[in-house]
Amino acid sequence: MTLVDTDAFLKDLYELREIGRFKTGVHRPTFSPQDMESRRWLMAKLSACGLDASIDGIGNVFGRHPGPGPHVLCGSHIETQNEAGWLDGALGVVAGIALARAGLPVDVCAFADEEGHFEGGFLGSRSIIGDLTEAEIDLSRNRTDGGSLRDALQAAGLAGKPRIEIDPSRYKGFFEMHIEQGTQLENAGLRIGVVSGIVAIWQYRLVIAGQQDHAGGTTMAERKDAGLTAVRLLAAIDAEFPRVCGERSTWTTGRIALSPGAPSIIPGKAEVLFQFRDVSMAVLERMEDTLYRLVRETNRRERCQIVVEALSKAIPALCDPAEMAALSAAAEALAPGAWQVMPSGAGHDAQNIARKIPASMLFVPSIGGISHHWAEDTKDDDLALGVAVLGDAVRRYLSAA
Amino acid sequence: MTLVDTDAFLKDLYELREIGRFKTGVHRPTFSPQDMESRRWLMAKLSACGLDASIDGIGNVFGRHPGPGPHVLCGSHIETQNEAGWLDGALGVVAGIALARAGLPVDVCAFADEEGHFEGGFLGSRSIIGDLTEAEIDLSRNRTDGGSLRDALQAAGLAGKPRIEIDPSRYKGFFEMHIEQGTQLENAGLRIGVVSGIVAIWQYRLVIAGQQDHAGGTTMAERKDAGLTAVRLLAAIDAEFPRVCGERSTWTTGRIALSPGAPSIIPGKAEVLFQFRDVSMAVLERMEDTLYRLVRETNRRERCQIVVEALSKAIPALCDPAEMAALSAAAEALAPGAWQVMPSGAGHDAQNIARKIPASMLFVPSIGGISHHWAEDTKDDDLALGVAVLGDAVRRYLSAA
Repeated sequence: MTLVDTDAFLKDLYELREIGRFKTGVHRPTFSPQDMESRRWLMAKLSACGLDASIDGIGNVFGRHPGPGPHVLCGSHIETQNEAGWLDGALGVVAGIALARAGLPVDVCAFADEEGHFEGGFLGSRSIIGDLTEAEIDLSRNRTDGGSLRDALQAAGLAGKPRIEIDPSRYKGFFEMHIEQGTQLENAGLRIGVVSGIVAIWQYRLVIAGQQDHAGGTTMAERKDAGLTAVRLLAAIDAEFPRVCGERSTWTTGRIALSPGAPSIIPGKAEVLFQFRDVSMAVLERMEDTLYRLVRETNRRERCQIVVEALSKAIPALCDPAEMAALSAAAEALAPGAWQVMPSGAGHDAQNIARKIPASMLFVPSIGGISHHWAEDTKDDDLALGVAVLGDAVRRYLSAA
Repeated sequence: MTLVDTDAFLKDLYELREIGRFKTGVHRPTFSPQDMESRRWLMAKLSACGLDASIDGIGNVFGRHPGPGPHVLCGSHIETQNEAGWLDGALGVVAGIALARAGLPVDVCAFADEEGHFEGGFLGSRSIIGDLTEAEIDLSRNRTDGGSLRDALQAAGLAGKPRIEIDPSRYKGFFEMHIEQGTQLENAGLRIGVVSGIVAIWQYRLVIAGQQDHAGGTTMAERKDAGLTAVRLLAAIDAEFPRVCGERSTWTTGRIALSPGAPSIIPGKAEVLFQFRDVSMAVLERMEDTLYRLVRETNRRERCQIVVEALSKAIPALCDPAEMAALSAAAEALAPGAWQVMPSGAGHDAQNIARKIPASMLFVPSIGGISHHWAEDTKDDDLALGVAVLGDAVRRYLSAA
């Protein structure tokens, strides 16, 4: 027996999947026409469930429960990475709709740009807790096309709108449902993950200045090849990071751009996007120290200089024990023995909300662990079980002393 | 005393610099509107000097001397790398105009796409010696935007035009004037280089297939990071190539593209443009063997597989001794003691023309060795001296037994 209408929940998810559809996934970069269409779709859905729906000056879509508290906040994000999956983010927002439809006293929020299409990262969830300044909005640019955030907000019709901040006293807690984005549940044959903590992501831009030159006329001894310096630094990171990382640390080079990028020209500039993740501040700081040490060593050895710019340094978050207890009880009731407690390797809006109100997360399996790719998927049965567990957990949590 | 009107020569060069101007350089990628404008400008110039001007089906602009032989062919190319220098290529073509204006029996040719904006490389000079098939034209794509060569020819109004082939019996020889694209002349305080041979460029595309995944949810042990495999291979090349290269070999990675190129996504695909150059076939083959060996070793060790595609493998060319003797005599007459014999580290159209008729090259200094960049430059005095030496050398060569 479940509080939640899982058929209506799946129908909502499939409806949202059609907005910006790309193969079996979706393409809804933040503030693109497809993204804005999905935000309008969401406002209509929230209103239909009896919530007061609005959109704010950073693109957060908020549905406020009109009745008395205590309230719970539910949500995630609905923009996506480029040509990415249909569930990442969307699942947690649509789960919020399902809980509201079931009559639970929930506010629902889709936090803007969790995916970090714009510099800064987590714009929506940072804005809603009062951690995003107007000055930072002024400076932020799109990481793909370099356009300013202000221009994007203007084009989306959001310029000048006030930004919503949450009142922590309104909420007993925050819940975010999400796909696992890994293979731990699948490999263990489990269906529900109760999240114990969320890693922090520390992101860096490495800019290497060389000398653009002809690839034939310039001898190996003379050249200042920014691309080669990038390769040497990244090879050093590849060798050194395993010695300083934590047991579940990850580190990733997502982009290497050589300028001008032609076959017969020695790259005069290289730009690298690098990030690492861990749940422990001590490990994060050790990895950062190592990055800066390797850059200093490389700069002493190479003819091209590397400049490091820290783009974002989030704080790892531990999930609230009382919410974890409610999620665990609900999981054991609806899927006995088929759940586990586990950390989140990905960053989520919940890590910001956790700074103001107790927060927790619930994971459902990702088929093949595929994420941030249009092939991302989860079985309907697992989606339905997940939202049922979430609804039951919120009921238990609200009724606890 | 010189045959050549060096003032008119400089005036022509400065005129051509205005077409597609970018800062102090030019931007004329092959078959762009700016490039086609420069080809029309060239045809008008050739006609004004009494040559029969035409453009062929691959974009070669040809000026045919109407009088009796023996003839000499002069030329180079007029398209440029992106946002590159004003002299690279243009110099050798405009020098041909100057020799025609001086009444020497020269044909002048601007060979299309020496810069290799399209796959295959050296399309124009390979076409004119009969070494470019229609099938290769069918397959060739723009290396920057992926558009087909056929579409580019159509858009430029060249589709369906016949392609010119040279009759080797018409020519006593070929001369190409060019900037050095290095610092050897400048560092030695010399003003003229008589080229002894031209390196061949062997170009490769390395495509690495991984698995696109979320950068947080996928552990280091699980991931198939195509970008990391690229870095490891390039680091291995960096370590190994110095052991197998020749004394003046060069090798260059001009582009690394990670797909999708976002900060929080493990690259599912990496594409690398890699090339090396030498004057010796034995050294070229040794470097290629090493590349394939390192790829095989990497493929055995890594979870991502690398596929190597050879894009172009030119043949190194030695310059004609009689032409070198004429260039040396002219250089000693006009710049006593201020010249040297030297190899060319860059590839040039002359290496293809040399397969059909005796060929040689003359270098003038590049300020700071800068090339393939808009800051590329050469002193007017050196340009004027160079064209005077070229004219005198062609006169000596034609009048020799």
